[in-house]
Amino acid sequence: FDSKLPNVGTTIFTIMSKMATDYGAINLSQGFPGFSCDPHLLDLVYKFMNEGKNQYAPMSGIPVLREILTEKTKKVHGVDYDSESEVTIVSGATDAIFSAITAVVKPGDEVILLEPAYDSYAPGIILAGGIPVFVPLDIPDFSVNWQRVKAATTEKTRLIMVNTPHNPSGYMWTQDDLNQLAALIQEREIYVISDEVYEHITFDGRVHLSLMTHPILKERTFVCGSFGKTFHVTGWKIGFCFAPAELTKEFRKVHQFVTFSTATPLQYALAEYLEEQNHYLELPHFYQKKRDLFCEGLKGTDFQFTPAQGSFFQQVYYGHLSQESDFDLAVRLTQKIGVASIPISVFFNNKDDHKILRFCFAKEDQVLEKAISILQKSK
Amino acid sequence: FDSKLPNVGTTIFTIMSKMATDYGAINLSQGFPGFSCDPHLLDLVYKFMNEGKNQYAPMSGIPVLREILTEKTKKVHGVDYDSESEVTIVSGATDAIFSAITAVVKPGDEVILLEPAYDSYAPGIILAGGIPVFVPLDIPDFSVNWQRVKAATTEKTRLIMVNTPHNPSGYMWTQDDLNQLAALIQEREIYVISDEVYEHITFDGRVHLSLMTHPILKERTFVCGSFGKTFHVTGWKIGFCFAPAELTKEFRKVHQFVTFSTATPLQYALAEYLEEQNHYLELPHFYQKKRDLFCEGLKGTDFQFTPAQGSFFQQVYYGHLSQESDFDLAVRLTQKIGVASIPISVFFNNKDDHKILRFCFAKEDQVLEKAISILQKSK
Ligand SMILES: CSCCC(=O)C(=O)O
Ligand SMILES: CSCCC(=O)C(=O)O
Repeated sequence: FDSKLPNVGTTIFTIMSKMATDYGAINLSQGFPGFSCDPHLLDLVYKFMNEGKNQYAPMSGIPVLREILTEKTKKVHGVDYDSESEVTIVSGATDAIFSAITAVVKPGDEVILLEPAYDSYAPGIILAGGIPVFVPLDIPDFSVNWQRVKAATTEKTRLIMVNTPHNPSGYMWTQDDLNQLAALIQEREIYVISDEVYEHITFDGRVHLSLMTHPILKERTFVCGSFGKTFHVTGWKIGFCFAPAELTKEFRKVHQFVTFSTATPLQYALAEYLEEQNHYLELPHFYQKKRDLFCEGLKGTDFQFTPAQGSFFQQVYYGHLSQESDFDLAVRLTQKIGVASIPISVFFNNKDDHKILRFCFAKEDQVLEKAISILQKSK
Repeated sequence: FDSKLPNVGTTIFTIMSKMATDYGAINLSQGFPGFSCDPHLLDLVYKFMNEGKNQYAPMSGIPVLREILTEKTKKVHGVDYDSESEVTIVSGATDAIFSAITAVVKPGDEVILLEPAYDSYAPGIILAGGIPVFVPLDIPDFSVNWQRVKAATTEKTRLIMVNTPHNPSGYMWTQDDLNQLAALIQEREIYVISDEVYEHITFDGRVHLSLMTHPILKERTFVCGSFGKTFHVTGWKIGFCFAPAELTKEFRKVHQFVTFSTATPLQYALAEYLEEQNHYLELPHFYQKKRDLFCEGLKGTDFQFTPAQGSFFQQVYYGHLSQESDFDLAVRLTQKIGVASIPISVFFNNKDDHKILRFCFAKEDQVLEKAISILQKSK
């Protein structure tokens, strides 16, 4: 079979999670919470299932969820969208990103990816016939190097992929980043997909600057978000995509033939939950305690690190200690030491090895403490 | 914006369901049950959610669901698949069909569609850069015209889309159809996607012949199915795709970047439910009573029809009564008379008008009776 994605294998998240299970290691690799959501949210799902909310939702999402989400977005980011024509409920942010890429990218179009980049972006672009153009972020802080981005922009550039707070580094876009991007695309027909699934997981008082807050960017951007990340239910696969009406129209044309709609009872439950309370306002505090716990423990190891600005990931550098590849070290730590992580070379098209591992700290405190004590002993 | 799908609008299912709501009509348009699933299935979802099954499922689906589904398939169709490498759990059959098309079709490839054809097939093909080649089924019985299919097959044909039991006509493929297709593709590199979401909804003792039951076809076919259709939960958006290991490998490469995985608690609940009982064995009887009730009532109208062989749709012909277009009639019946249906011209690329409407009879008996009494009075 002549594969359309010859270089794609099993995602690293699947590989490392499976290895963690097989070797009984603490799984700090794949990004998902090791704790449950509010049980009340589960009661709401049960309630709506029993009320018969089990048939197709409208393709764009149930109106009440689109409305409350649009209100929340107004409250959080101060930005207005039309809940009817500018937001779509999707089967996870992966679906949103895939559908947006597929709606925009034509054969031969170039798409700029800032590396390290989440592993679903490039295959989506390739399947649409696009050409991924890889631009490295600046190491060690993973900030955007605008010189390089400008140099990579050509007549054929059609789309730029943004991710803030950034996975795996936690880097958060600044107002200057937003302005630089706006200046770059203003005179051209370039669109933007902004993966903002960690919008509510930010630290040290930092405020997430959504691309929607910049008037020029708002007109060109698909802002993709995730209920799973915000409400500790990554397995529900439900997210959303905000975009101006003209772009939403194209997005929905694709989305209606990709998954059509998203699990109805989950939509009703999330709508009522969002109406009732502001759980997401507690997330910075909740996750900062975990980040601090983990980073405090890391001080007892030989790893070098700067605490993450946002996301639920902490990167660590070990290049001063060994020249082992990051993949080999991640495998060894999982199989021999008992803590699974993600080698960040997998986020680079050329598997560039910067000697950095990524740990997910969205786990119960005692799990983090155990992982830390193992890592400290093995140093 | 230069659209990649310039001819795609809102699906007819969304349009007619909305019109039914707006005009207070009985909604026999979009295909979904008007009744609930077994409440025990809901209890199972609640149980697994409370057990913490709320994080990412494995990309290919949870092993226990893949295993029990593979066993059921063996029991029902007498066919062996490997539950590890030959079946994938997906976010609805739409996701399965889209991912399979995207995995197989390259720019310039021709794909044969038998018209009337479900509305998601052609856009998926176009987005992959493929060329849909439309071959009409024989009217009035909607059987496959193999002369025409052969005549449409070229060096560039890469894929054939099959749907049995057929939506909208209910036509079910015969052993001869399977043999004809096998003979056609045997000497070429042509693959098949078989949409079999109505596999358990068959009438008058007819047995659904899955394409997987033919040894030659099995090697080339993605068989797509739906838990939503079988268990009365279309809104859960969960289905599956069987394909030989080599094709499943390509399917998963795409699927992992389209939706990645499907709602975890729903997977666990369906696995346990399938383990406990054979609810699906009652479906032919359950739906045949509804088909018969509806068809009995239709006899009191001036519509002409042959009772459907399978699916939960009944087509009716009105060309002997009026030359009104099927779309206009469907709109008028919804707005003025009070019963919504689907005009089948929307299933044709050229909107061919055969003066046929499609009614969904997956509704409570009293709803069907009311619809019939309205249709009888308005004749
Ligand atoms: C879809 S599995 C990957 C989860 C994730 O976002 C990550 O670990 O980076
Ligand atoms: C995804 S909405 C359409 C439901 C359906 O299969 C039909 O009505 O034909």
